[in-house]
Amino acid sequence: MRFAAFTSGGKKGLAVAGADGVFHGFFDGNSEYPGSLGSLIAKGSEALDTAAAVLKNGPVINLNQVQLLPPIQTPGKIICVGLNYVDHSLESGFTPPSYPTIFTRFTSSLIGAGSPIIRPKASTQLDYEGEMVVVIGTGGRHIAEADALKHVIGYSIFNDASIRDYQMKSPQWTVGKNFDATGAFGPWLVTADELPPGGTGLHLQTRLNGTVVQDASTSDMIFSAAKLIAILSEALTLSPGDIIVSGTPAGVGFARKPQLYMKHGDVCEIEIEGIGVLRNTVVDE
Amino acid sequence: MRFAAFTSGGKKGLAVAGADGVFHGFFDGNSEYPGSLGSLIAKGSEALDTAAAVLKNGPVINLNQVQLLPPIQTPGKIICVGLNYVDHSLESGFTPPSYPTIFTRFTSSLIGAGSPIIRPKASTQLDYEGEMVVVIGTGGRHIAEADALKHVIGYSIFNDASIRDYQMKSPQWTVGKNFDATGAFGPWLVTADELPPGGTGLHLQTRLNGTVVQDASTSDMIFSAAKLIAILSEALTLSPGDIIVSGTPAGVGFARKPQLYMKHGDVCEIEIEGIGVLRNTVVDE
Repeated sequence: MRFAAFTSGGKKGLAVAGADGVFHGFFDGNSEYPGSLGSLIAKGSEALDTAAAVLKNGPVINLNQVQLLPPIQTPGKIICVGLNYVDHSLESGFTPPSYPTIFTRFTSSLIGAGSPIIRPKASTQLDYEGEMVVVIGTGGRHIAEADALKHVIGYSIFNDASIRDYQMKSPQWTVGKNFDATGAFGPWLVTADELPPGGTGLHLQTRLNGTVVQDASTSDMIFSAAKLIAILSEALTLSPGDIIVSGTPAGVGFARKPQLYMKHGDVCEIEIEGIGVLRNTVVDE
Repeated sequence: MRFAAFTSGGKKGLAVAGADGVFHGFFDGNSEYPGSLGSLIAKGSEALDTAAAVLKNGPVINLNQVQLLPPIQTPGKIICVGLNYVDHSLESGFTPPSYPTIFTRFTSSLIGAGSPIIRPKASTQLDYEGEMVVVIGTGGRHIAEADALKHVIGYSIFNDASIRDYQMKSPQWTVGKNFDATGAFGPWLVTADELPPGGTGLHLQTRLNGTVVQDASTSDMIFSAAKLIAILSEALTLSPGDIIVSGTPAGVGFARKPQLYMKHGDVCEIEIEGIGVLRNTVVDE
């Protein structure tokens, strides 16, 4: 199943699509609206299934006629993994790591598919990073790698758009990764049962104005979804709706010669096989 | 005024103290309970003043007989500043920075005053860091330094307890700063009107089992509260209830010879003049 969150006419809605890809759903305010995807995930997979059955009886929702939102708008944690593909580690001047490089985003940086990525006044170094998102369904601490995928409710796509000069102004990348409207998340959540275990072996491609700039397989990740969950949960409790943005492959703009940054009017698309296409335009602040 | 959040018998409560230091308040479920401090801050300073007037008519709350909670339990952003005192930058092997070093915490790491800091199974390198917290009252983007302090509703204390080996396992400090129950925040929020502008000139002292291990003035911060707000809001929108954990002075355990780490049974106190004392014991996971 695919779950899409959206807004139209000032009302939020949630829709689900099955095998035929047609979304049906309801708007908040309708008695059948089951709540946000985040709230349903928090209630457990049974609640999510029940909600899906209800949403399927709703009217068809044309996603081209509504504004998509991040599938989960306020994840409790946005855990981002840096340097998680060997080729990207090397192009960035780092040795491929033996322990994952973790940074974070605030929800204030999130936008949905179709919303503009904002190139800030402060910088012209706005770079794309296509990534797969792993969404936690069942929380936990000290989760064994062998059990980890039972904790995943689904997958999505992220454009971890980065302001490179601000990312490198200090030893920690936080500011360059948290400009407003730079974290595109969507277009929807695909439930884990529709994809290979751990979302492995999926073709990931980033296109800037139609030109392929990143092209890889999610199997090339150094730390798999299961390994990330095991490693992270050694330190902290994962909760339903937390997301792990699992890292980007080679081809980012700052590592190119000449460097390639996104500018006003550009269209950036990230496609992951079996999930969909996350498309955003770039607009100057 | 001082606002303290707490729980007792499974119910949350909020209390306020004026000049006499006696807390009065109500529990959730009582018709006079005005809501959480975070929700009141989100409504604006007038709502906070109204709530304070109501709380003052409540019964006396003995804070020794309740469990204190972080004044704000789910800040939208926990923005932490590293290397913000010259002497601590130098002891850590860094050059004092020209741009703030920002990392973040998840709310899952927070505990209140009096709750145990958990030393995890994974490591014995549990270190203290005494810090002043700046709490945002009014949000905004592109806030000028000259206007920044108008956006501060109050101040508090933080023990940014760090798992040093995990902090240094990768280029980003996130994991070592986010173990469960390592971010002590409290004991309460003191409104900005009770302190010098920007919380400057306050004596900050950390004591481990009664021995002074950090001793500084908040005036020694490289980036003041006002400067931090201006710099951060160049990149992102600050929102009511966001907190800025403003950095620690010299004296941390990992920089000592021999190194000094916290262990089961230790008591760590951080005192900031005009705010109070944040006291936590250490307990093994």
